[in-house]
Amino acid sequence: MRAVVCHQAQLTVEELPDLTPAEGQILLDVERCGICGSDLHARTHCDETAADAAALGYDAFMRSTDRVVLGHEFVGTVADYGPRTRKPFPVGTRVVALPVLRTGADVHLTGLSEQAPGGYAEQVLVNASMTMRVPDSLDADAAALTEPMAVALHAVRRGEVGAKDTAVVIGCGPIGLAVIAMLKATGVRHVIASDFSPGRRALAERMGADVVVDPATVSPWASFADSRYLTEAIALAELGLDAMDKLRAVPLLPWAHVMRAAEKVGATPRGPVVFECVGLPGMIEHIISSAPLLSRVVVVGVCMGEDSFRPSMAINKEIDLRFAFAYDPSEFHQTLQWIGSGKVDVAPLVTGVVGLDGVAGAFADLGDPERHAKILVDPAQRPSSAR
Amino acid sequence: MRAVVCHQAQLTVEELPDLTPAEGQILLDVERCGICGSDLHARTHCDETAADAAALGYDAFMRSTDRVVLGHEFVGTVADYGPRTRKPFPVGTRVVALPVLRTGADVHLTGLSEQAPGGYAEQVLVNASMTMRVPDSLDADAAALTEPMAVALHAVRRGEVGAKDTAVVIGCGPIGLAVIAMLKATGVRHVIASDFSPGRRALAERMGADVVVDPATVSPWASFADSRYLTEAIALAELGLDAMDKLRAVPLLPWAHVMRAAEKVGATPRGPVVFECVGLPGMIEHIISSAPLLSRVVVVGVCMGEDSFRPSMAINKEIDLRFAFAYDPSEFHQTLQWIGSGKVDVAPLVTGVVGLDGVAGAFADLGDPERHAKILVDPAQRPSSAR
Repeated sequence: MRAVVCHQAQLTVEELPDLTPAEGQILLDVERCGICGSDLHARTHCDETAADAAALGYDAFMRSTDRVVLGHEFVGTVADYGPRTRKPFPVGTRVVALPVLRTGADVHLTGLSEQAPGGYAEQVLVNASMTMRVPDSLDADAAALTEPMAVALHAVRRGEVGAKDTAVVIGCGPIGLAVIAMLKATGVRHVIASDFSPGRRALAERMGADVVVDPATVSPWASFADSRYLTEAIALAELGLDAMDKLRAVPLLPWAHVMRAAEKVGATPRGPVVFECVGLPGMIEHIISSAPLLSRVVVVGVCMGEDSFRPSMAINKEIDLRFAFAYDPSEFHQTLQWIGSGKVDVAPLVTGVVGLDGVAGAFADLGDPERHAKILVDPAQRPSSAR
Repeated sequence: MRAVVCHQAQLTVEELPDLTPAEGQILLDVERCGICGSDLHARTHCDETAADAAALGYDAFMRSTDRVVLGHEFVGTVADYGPRTRKPFPVGTRVVALPVLRTGADVHLTGLSEQAPGGYAEQVLVNASMTMRVPDSLDADAAALTEPMAVALHAVRRGEVGAKDTAVVIGCGPIGLAVIAMLKATGVRHVIASDFSPGRRALAERMGADVVVDPATVSPWASFADSRYLTEAIALAELGLDAMDKLRAVPLLPWAHVMRAAEKVGATPRGPVVFECVGLPGMIEHIISSAPLLSRVVVVGVCMGEDSFRPSMAINKEIDLRFAFAYDPSEFHQTLQWIGSGKVDVAPLVTGVVGLDGVAGAFADLGDPERHAKILVDPAQRPSSAR
C-alpha cells in the first residue's frame, strides 16, 4: 500500500507491504485522515514526547529514528476482519475507530508509534472493539473530525462548564474552534473567543462563539466583564450585600466575595472557565496574571518542555489549572453521534483536502493561520486532482 | 502600648501611641498572637508581595520601608468599643477576629499593612462585624490557632476531598500539620503525610496522619499504592474489566481507566488529593512528575517569584492544580467551633510562647524544623518568664 512515512523529520510517500489484521482487528480502507497539530509536533519533537511517555510507562512512542506512518484522525470502510473476530459491520461499511491498536498484550498509539501505522495511508488496522459505525447521514470529511472533536468534548467536561458560566477560549486553531463548537453544543450561553488571526476569528464566529475578540485591540476579560452573566452576578451580589457585611469586609479578594455573595442569592459562584488552546510557553502565566479571580483554566494546548509561571499570583486569585488529555470511548461515541445528528457542525473546520503526495506541503501550509484550520488527507486522491 | 515594629527587615520592641477604636471597631487587649510563616516571609520579602497585591488592586500591603506591627493570628479580650458601635460582648470577653480592618471606605490587612497594626502588641483594633466570641472551654493558646486552622479548612474544601479519598500532605510545617488535622476532622479516612524532619513527622502523627513517611527513604506515592482505597479500586476495576473491553484498550492512561472502571462499579474515580504545603520552587514540578495519574493538587504553600514545571506531563496525567488562599468568614467561624468542641486538637502545634522581646529570636528559631511548629507571642510576658 502507499503511505506517508515520517523518518528523521522527513515525510515521504512510500510503497509499504500490505497490512494483515490479527485476531480482534479490522482492516480499513482509509477514506480521510485529518492532519493534527500533534502530527506537526511529532515530526520535529517526537523524541521529547517519547521521553515523557516512557516516564509514564509507554516506551513505544515514535522516535525520530523510527519509520512511522502518522495519522490518528481517520475514517474508512471495512475491508477485512482478522481470524476468529466477530463481524458486526458488512464489508464496505463506513466506520471510525479510536486510534489505539492492541497486538497481544501490548497496546499502541495508532499513527504515533512504529508499532501501529496510522491513517496517512491507503489502509489502517483498528481494534474491532474500538470501532464505531458512522451514521448514514455523515460524509467522510465530517466523520474524520470525530477524533479532534472528542478531544474538545473531553476538555469541556474537564472544565465542568455550566450553561450559565462564561467560557473564554484563548486561541482559535483547530482545537480552540472544536472547543467553541462543543461549548455551544453542551448549552453554554456565553462563549468568548480570542485570536490574533482575522481568519481564525471568522471561523470562531462560524463555530458559534458569541463574542470574538482580537487580543491585540480588546482584552477577552473586558468581554467577560460585559457579559450578561457578570452583570447578573454583580446585581445579585449588590442586592445581597446588606445582609453580608462580613463578606464585604474581606479585602484582596473583592471578586471572590462578590462571587460568594452571588452564590448565596443563587448566581454562579465563580469566575469564567478559560480554555488555553495555544500551547506556547508563557500562555499559562499570561492567563494567570490577566484572568479574573476564581478563574478555572482548562489547559488543552500542549506546551512541550519547561514553562514558568508565578504561583503566588495563582494563589492570590485562587485559580484552578485543569490539564486535559484525550477522551473516553464514551466521549468519542457521543461526539460521533452529535456530528451525525447535526448538533455539531464541523464543516467550517475543513479548509483543504490533499492526496498522500500533498501531505508534506500541507504540513508547511498549516503554519499560516489565515489559510487553514484542518486539512484532510484523501489517500485515493492523485496530485492532479488536488483541491 | 508596647509593640514589635518591623522596619527594613529589623524587628524591635517600641513604645507606640495607644490605639483608639473608630466607629464599628473594637479595641482588644491581645492575649496571644501566633507567628506565621507569612510573617517570616514578609519581614524579608514584603516588597515582592506588595507588588503582586498592587496588581490585584490592593496597594497598602507592607513595604520594607514601612513601620509595620506584624501579627494576624491573634486572640484577645474586649477592652473598648468605638463610638456608635453595637456592643455584643461585655468588656473582658475573649474573642478572635478576622485580620482585616475597615477604616472608612478602605479595608486593610491587619498585621500586614502599616494602616492596620497587628497582634505583636499589647492592643489591636478589629472590626466589630468580623469578631467572634471564643467558647468558654477554650484557652488563649488554642484560640490563637483559629486563623491558621481556618486556612487549612479552606484548603481542604478547595480539594473537595471525600471520606473515601486518599489525601497526601507534602510538608509538615504548621500549615501541613493544620491540613492533616482538618482532613481528619472532616472524616477523610486515609491521610498520608511526608516530611524530611523527624520532629515534624512525630507531630504529623499526633495531628492524626494515618501514614507518615520520610521522603528520603519512602515515596509517599508508594504509601498511596498500599492504601486500602487503592487496593479496593483495583479489585473492583478487575471485577469490572470483562465488561469493559473498550476501557481497557486505551493506552498511556492505564491508571485513568482503572479509575474510570472503578467508578462504574462504585469506587472513587480519581487519584489522590495532594496538598503542597512546602512552598519552595520546584515542588509543583516534583509533584507533577511523581504523583499518580489524575491527582488533584491543592497548592497551599506560597512560592514567591517564578516557578517552572512541565505542562506536557501535567496534561498526560490529567493533573488538577488548585491554588488556595485564606478562608471565608464562615470557615473561620466553623474552625473556631471545631477547636472549641475538641473536634480539632491544636495543642500539639504550640511548641513555644515568647514575650514581645522574644519575637526576633523566635523568628530565628522557627528556621529549625526539629525545634518548633508554632510559637505564640504573649505580650504580657516579660523576658524573665519565657518558657
